[in-house]
Amino acid sequence: MRKNLRFILVIFDYIMKVKVYVTLKPGVLDPQGKAIHHSAELLGFEKIADIRQGKYFEIALAENTSEAEAKETAEKIAKDVLANPVIEDYRVEIVN
Amino acid sequence: MRKNLRFILVIFDYIMKVKVYVTLKPGVLDPQGKAIHHSAELLGFEKIADIRQGKYFEIALAENTSEAEAKETAEKIAKDVLANPVIEDYRVEIVN
Repeated sequence: MRKNLRFILVIFDYIMKVKVYVTLKPGVLDPQGKAIHHSAELLGFEKIADIRQGKYFEIALAENTSEAEAKETAEKIAKDVLANPVIEDYRVEIVN
Repeated sequence: MRKNLRFILVIFDYIMKVKVYVTLKPGVLDPQGKAIHHSAELLGFEKIADIRQGKYFEIALAENTSEAEAKETAEKIAKDVLANPVIEDYRVEIVN
């Protein structure tokens, strides 16, 4: 039993997590954010100047991925799959 | 001119920004994340164990909002407008 527990802890150690934040570039119109702003105002929230919506992804990488590899893979996925670089910015953050 | 500049800087000082992260609770199925995972695999990214999608919001609050007020407003908006507390968790982060 104790052996199993140690085995599980070791596996957990090797799973690398990456967080990717995708936001619209400044200046790009955000109708969804405007709609949320309007809804919030109708519900009585008056202190809001602006709301902008973005996307957020949590990527779990395969075991034994090094930090450098994780960063590289995540940057590539963010650029190729998750964000549209013409109108969006992205930010990658490694968690381990 | 210099007076105007100073005025703008003072205003910037008082705008409080809040970031809200909304994620599906653990255990809730995420078909959109699965679809992204599948697409990424087709594009040749093999080191991914899992992708989960969430939402991300940047809220700019009205001038002269205190930090405590900002936190309270943001928590309320997150709970009432941005997240569905039945299936989603949210996290609020103050930036100033």
